[in-house]
Amino acid sequence: MTDTDRSHAAALDAVDPLAALREEFVVASEQQVYLDGNSLGRLPRATAARLAAVVHEDWGRGLVGSWHDWVDLAYRVGDAIGTALLGAAPGQTVVADSTSVNLYKLAAAALDARPDRRVIVTDSRNFPSDRYVLEGLAAARRLELRLLATPTAEPVSAADVAAALSEDVALVSLSLVDYCSGALADLQSVTAAAHAAGALILWDLCHAAGAVPISLDDSKVDLAVGCTYKYLNAGPGAPAFLYVRDDLQEQLRQPIWGWFGQREQFRMGATYDPAPGITRYLAGSPPVLAMTAVEAGVEVLARVGMTALREKSVALTDYVIALADAWLEPLGVAVGTPRAVARRGAHVALRHADAWQITQMLITRYDVIPDFREPDIIRIGVPPAYTRFVDGWDALDRLRRGVAAGEHLTFAAERARVT
Amino acid sequence: MTDTDRSHAAALDAVDPLAALREEFVVASEQQVYLDGNSLGRLPRATAARLAAVVHEDWGRGLVGSWHDWVDLAYRVGDAIGTALLGAAPGQTVVADSTSVNLYKLAAAALDARPDRRVIVTDSRNFPSDRYVLEGLAAARRLELRLLATPTAEPVSAADVAAALSEDVALVSLSLVDYCSGALADLQSVTAAAHAAGALILWDLCHAAGAVPISLDDSKVDLAVGCTYKYLNAGPGAPAFLYVRDDLQEQLRQPIWGWFGQREQFRMGATYDPAPGITRYLAGSPPVLAMTAVEAGVEVLARVGMTALREKSVALTDYVIALADAWLEPLGVAVGTPRAVARRGAHVALRHADAWQITQMLITRYDVIPDFREPDIIRIGVPPAYTRFVDGWDALDRLRRGVAAGEHLTFAAERARVT
Repeated sequence: MTDTDRSHAAALDAVDPLAALREEFVVASEQQVYLDGNSLGRLPRATAARLAAVVHEDWGRGLVGSWHDWVDLAYRVGDAIGTALLGAAPGQTVVADSTSVNLYKLAAAALDARPDRRVIVTDSRNFPSDRYVLEGLAAARRLELRLLATPTAEPVSAADVAAALSEDVALVSLSLVDYCSGALADLQSVTAAAHAAGALILWDLCHAAGAVPISLDDSKVDLAVGCTYKYLNAGPGAPAFLYVRDDLQEQLRQPIWGWFGQREQFRMGATYDPAPGITRYLAGSPPVLAMTAVEAGVEVLARVGMTALREKSVALTDYVIALADAWLEPLGVAVGTPRAVARRGAHVALRHADAWQITQMLITRYDVIPDFREPDIIRIGVPPAYTRFVDGWDALDRLRRGVAAGEHLTFAAERARVT
Repeated sequence: MTDTDRSHAAALDAVDPLAALREEFVVASEQQVYLDGNSLGRLPRATAARLAAVVHEDWGRGLVGSWHDWVDLAYRVGDAIGTALLGAAPGQTVVADSTSVNLYKLAAAALDARPDRRVIVTDSRNFPSDRYVLEGLAAARRLELRLLATPTAEPVSAADVAAALSEDVALVSLSLVDYCSGALADLQSVTAAAHAAGALILWDLCHAAGAVPISLDDSKVDLAVGCTYKYLNAGPGAPAFLYVRDDLQEQLRQPIWGWFGQREQFRMGATYDPAPGITRYLAGSPPVLAMTAVEAGVEVLARVGMTALREKSVALTDYVIALADAWLEPLGVAVGTPRAVARRGAHVALRHADAWQITQMLITRYDVIPDFREPDIIRIGVPPAYTRFVDGWDALDRLRRGVAAGEHLTFAAERARVT
């Protein structure tokens, strides 16, 4: 039995070795319980100062001469993410573009490398933008987009993937952590299953980077993309990252032949000659201000490391699940996240037919900020860098009181919310 | 004869109706003569405050709830650029991605709309990234990339384009202002020439937006892209804009089917259903911090308007050309920019076999910051928003003294510079 008294949550916070890390983030309201850091992470205190320095000194004073420092940003920030959070040796990760554009570039590169294979495999529950990007590529090349239909609350397994594979499959593209359920797939065995069928694999790490330990190199992953505005706390719409395993970098070629991918870019040669290594996966100019915020955000996590973050994250999600079992199950709210630690990311899905109304109730009456996901999910994001056990307690306590009193029923069942 | 005394430049500044506009920009060094605003525009004073507000208030305090304001940024900033600077009615311009990615999206959309035509026409002197992007699309689709070979110092003409056209041409893609020579093409007649052959036209406005008056709607332009970090002063690598004429928006379809292009995006439907209008030309999440700087930069120009900016710009380039004729022609430095006002953008190309060394001399010994371009161009950017006539005088005076004394010959003829 979980101790459901608030003093127990406070006691867990008191012995939390990462408790001080919260001080590195701006917490503008101590009343508000913010549980949507997996949509938009909090502002690190260091970011504002770093941005101001880049704006005033590098741009305002240094002007065009500052490109001397900026021209390496894609690699510098990419390697910081890769080495600290992705299990990727340097030279394989860059920051550029959006996740959708990066997914397009790498998926197209993979399809070009398997021209005789006519199928792309993904998960019917994969993040919409991923499905749409793959659907677009399939339509343009007249390929089949084959959708896995995995159980709602369990991660894609190697067996699921193997069952969908054939000699026709060029590319498997999946999310490591499911954006709805929080289910965490097994990177190594699923990657091996794709390879066993001769397919390339492209992982979306949006809900995984900074949330769970990742071993791209050791798992022999081919390609990966991910965003930086969730657990990496890089700010709204911050540029994304992409990873291409070193031995594949010059075998593949991405379709957007921009000048930042060109060998000796500033010689401006007559024809496109892709630069060696990871550089050829860049296209246009890097958004320097936005990438400065990525760098600052990543540094906060890198100092602590994924081992400590994961340890706290597991304790937090364990605690939220235990409170949900104790308090919410009797109210008809089910846990929609795998209970096995090895199959769980850093957020918890709570399921209820009135999830939309409950979410609205929490936001407008209780200053608790979770996230609604179609059709019936209340997403409880508990990023370990700044979430306290008392935050979990306060959120679920307010939720149970509101639902027990039927307060959520006063909200209309509409779906217009922008998240 | 031009009055080549510095007092004449000072007198021109004294009666410049835009003189006060310089106060709206950070000028960290009054000694330095900055002539590379056409690579990276200066920092507007308002930008730092605006960015800080978005960082602290919207992100730090408002967190995910601020998407309510951010979700319209692409349209709001796009329309600000379109209506103030491009001659585009609202609903046709958005800010998104980089120029190279936008060029890729729109060129691909155009090629898909002309499936039976096998040729792309561009200029052999077009900006490298544009040529590479088009080369990549041609290679992927086995199309011909046909290169115009126009005279070095003159803009592409309607006759040049007409001569290269045939029933096989799907797309013509050109830069309105040449990044080297500063030559300004005639938007209307070149567009008409492309249309006469049944081709679509895609204009790159990087060196034109905020530099010269543009009439996309009146010229019946199909498609356009451009960057915001030059004359729009939006900061290093700031996101780009794209324009699709309203009646084409639903006839064409771009290849990167991301969720920001999806109808009712947050319903996250099972299959891609492109949103009506310009929305379908978006792909991934907008970089909010970077777009905030675009909005602040555009506002400075919008308040003044392109008519006043162009009037000053013409006077500035006239003055620089006159000084070059008087002082530099005897030293072997030629003007590489069209002398006719109607064929000239907002920068002046000076040509000399030792252009690289002269540029190095100016930067390191004279604190004058022009830009070198292969093979022999010293680019003198004089953005009208903050450049004074005395800046032109000081730069060319230092240049003539240095070259007359042979100081540039002490610099090695290497080409490693990053710009």
